[in-house]
Amino acid sequence: MPTFEVPNIAANTPLWLALVTTFVAAVSGAILGRQPGKVSYDIVGVTVFAFVLGLGGGITRDVLLGNLPPLALRSPWYVVTVLGAVITVLLIGRWIPVDGWTFILLDALALGLYAVIAAQLAVEFGLPDIGAITVGFLAAVTGGVLVSVLRGETPQILLPSQPYALLAVIGATIYVLLDAYSGGVAAFACLASVIVLRFVTLRWNLRTRSVRPLRPSEEGRAPEGSAPEGSAPEAD
Amino acid sequence: MPTFEVPNIAANTPLWLALVTTFVAAVSGAILGRQPGKVSYDIVGVTVFAFVLGLGGGITRDVLLGNLPPLALRSPWYVVTVLGAVITVLLIGRWIPVDGWTFILLDALALGLYAVIAAQLAVEFGLPDIGAITVGFLAAVTGGVLVSVLRGETPQILLPSQPYALLAVIGATIYVLLDAYSGGVAAFACLASVIVLRFVTLRWNLRTRSVRPLRPSEEGRAPEGSAPEGSAPEAD
Amino acid sequence: MPTFEVPNIAANTPLWLALVTTFVAAVSGAILGRQPGKVSYDIVGVTVFAFVLGLGGGITRDVLLGNLPPLALRSPWYVVTVLGAVITVLLIGRWIPVDGWTFILLDALALGLYAVIAAQLAVEFGLPDIGAITVGFLAAVTGGVLVSVLRGETPQILLPSQPYALLAVIGATIYVLLDAYSGGVAAFACLASVIVLRFVTLRWNLRTRSVRPLRPSEEGRAPEGSAPEGSAPEAD
Repeated sequence: MPTFEVPNIAANTPLWLALVTTFVAAVSGAILGRQPGKVSYDIVGVTVFAFVLGLGGGITRDVLLGNLPPLALRSPWYVVTVLGAVITVLLIGRWIPVDGWTFILLDALALGLYAVIAAQLAVEFGLPDIGAITVGFLAAVTGGVLVSVLRGETPQILLPSQPYALLAVIGATIYVLLDAYSGGVAAFACLASVIVLRFVTLRWNLRTRSVRPLRPSEEGRAPEGSAPEGSAPEAD
Repeated sequence: MPTFEVPNIAANTPLWLALVTTFVAAVSGAILGRQPGKVSYDIVGVTVFAFVLGLGGGITRDVLLGNLPPLALRSPWYVVTVLGAVITVLLIGRWIPVDGWTFILLDALALGLYAVIAAQLAVEFGLPDIGAITVGFLAAVTGGVLVSVLRGETPQILLPSQPYALLAVIGATIYVLLDAYSGGVAAFACLASVIVLRFVTLRWNLRTRSVRPLRPSEEGRAPEGSAPEGSAPEAD
Repeated sequence: MPTFEVPNIAANTPLWLALVTTFVAAVSGAILGRQPGKVSYDIVGVTVFAFVLGLGGGITRDVLLGNLPPLALRSPWYVVTVLGAVITVLLIGRWIPVDGWTFILLDALALGLYAVIAAQLAVEFGLPDIGAITVGFLAAVTGGVLVSVLRGETPQILLPSQPYALLAVIGATIYVLLDAYSGGVAAFACLASVIVLRFVTLRWNLRTRSVRPLRPSEEGRAPEGSAPEGSAPEAD
């Protein structure tokens, strides 16, 4: 296989592709700011969520690697893209089909791209494989975790749910393993795996299971008959 | 106008001025630690709040710019100032007129100074205008956001409230726009704008509005008649 | 005293010692993920807690000092150790004697070692004494604080409790003060102090007190007779 012909999308990400995925992530963030709930956010809240979800991963990656100032601030286009996403959500937020296949596809592409770009850069900065996978994972999930923390919610990736963080780990692992053979093929395989796995988990509603608590739950024992599954009394 | 005669207070901040504003911010933080509420903090809590509010913005700025170790740790005086603020609040906390004009003036000065110093340094580090404004914004608000997160509260700047984060954005923007003409004038205009706008928003109690949720609130619909303004049913 | 004979355990930490303490901290984190409570975490949650508690302090230290990429990612062994801790807790979590003396000893050793390694590196990077103590403190407590924030809890170190953060401050201070005399002796004295003080506070159940609120608590006043101690009306 003429590996030299496959461009490495992780090492030389076209700017338009980076901006499209930033836009998608920032739109998701801004929409979180307009979600009905106990509190309503103001324009700063909506913008901060868009900023954190759109750029938080890349900034985390660059801080960890010492690649400073972060790319997201060195180029003006990333912040402009986030502001564009905020304006889009303010104007036509209700018509954005966030549950549609197109958006899910772009969101999975963003997930994979964050992971693979970060893993690639980490390899370039001399990190060992397992360090590069860790950076890829952190780049992919930190934005979402920070937004959850700002909203006072438990980050979804820590709870039983459709695997999302795991896809980033799998994608980064595939990239790192195949990179020695061909960076271009590795990046393509990473992105394809993340996207396919994302649709597979959605289609069959695959979910991670909760890890069984070490002891019966204190809360669960008090009101009789209401003990959750994982907290059944058992011999210690 | 002899622009060369106006010293650039952002590029060459006198140490006493930096320490005064650090002191003011740290006092605000320590007072948060002594606010009556559901939980009482210990001496570590009070100190951490003072530290985060007094130095968090500067450290965030230096981490983002790669200006490491951060200035707040390179010079001993910043940590000493924070500890002085903690001792002050422990000893005479109840006599500090945090609602008085003097404190509000110093607090607005601190807000403007964080924004303008960070924006100036970002320009010096070669960031484009919009990147410098972003760093100025982050330097001005990160300390307060972190304290809120540590206290388990939603950060005030994300909610409808008197504009605070927006003042940092306006100030940093003014600095960046005027900087090409004269750094000294730009820094002065930035600080003056932030302080004046702070008093204007206080005087007329200007507040940001909440962004309308995209769908009627689930919580709002259940108990009839109790739907908040922003959650009235509307055509989707 | 032939100071040249005492190896500086902070400057040249044997890898096995660094990994043992990482393992202990990561096990504590993973066990937090299996604690019974309102929510159950999945495998990602357990791993993230182990990662944050095991490596968060060292990464914070390296980010603050600009020692990037952080050591915890430059060497593969740290992440491997965290994963080993996760697997250990998943397999034999209920048999790990986290309340036993051995675990408490290792945990105190980890606390002291985080503080002293960070303080030593900060001195090496040219920080003044008080800056080095601050970095030692932050390295020792940031992991635990982050895990608390991710769990939606108020970080324990901010609340009246057995002193833990204070031990890190004391340990780092001892190291910095004695370092001019002999780094090896300083590191040993730091570790010994933290471990001894940890057992002293456990033995006599010493606890920090809450700082008295500045005003009577609003919550406390409403229901009569239920005002907590610190909120008794007093002359302002």
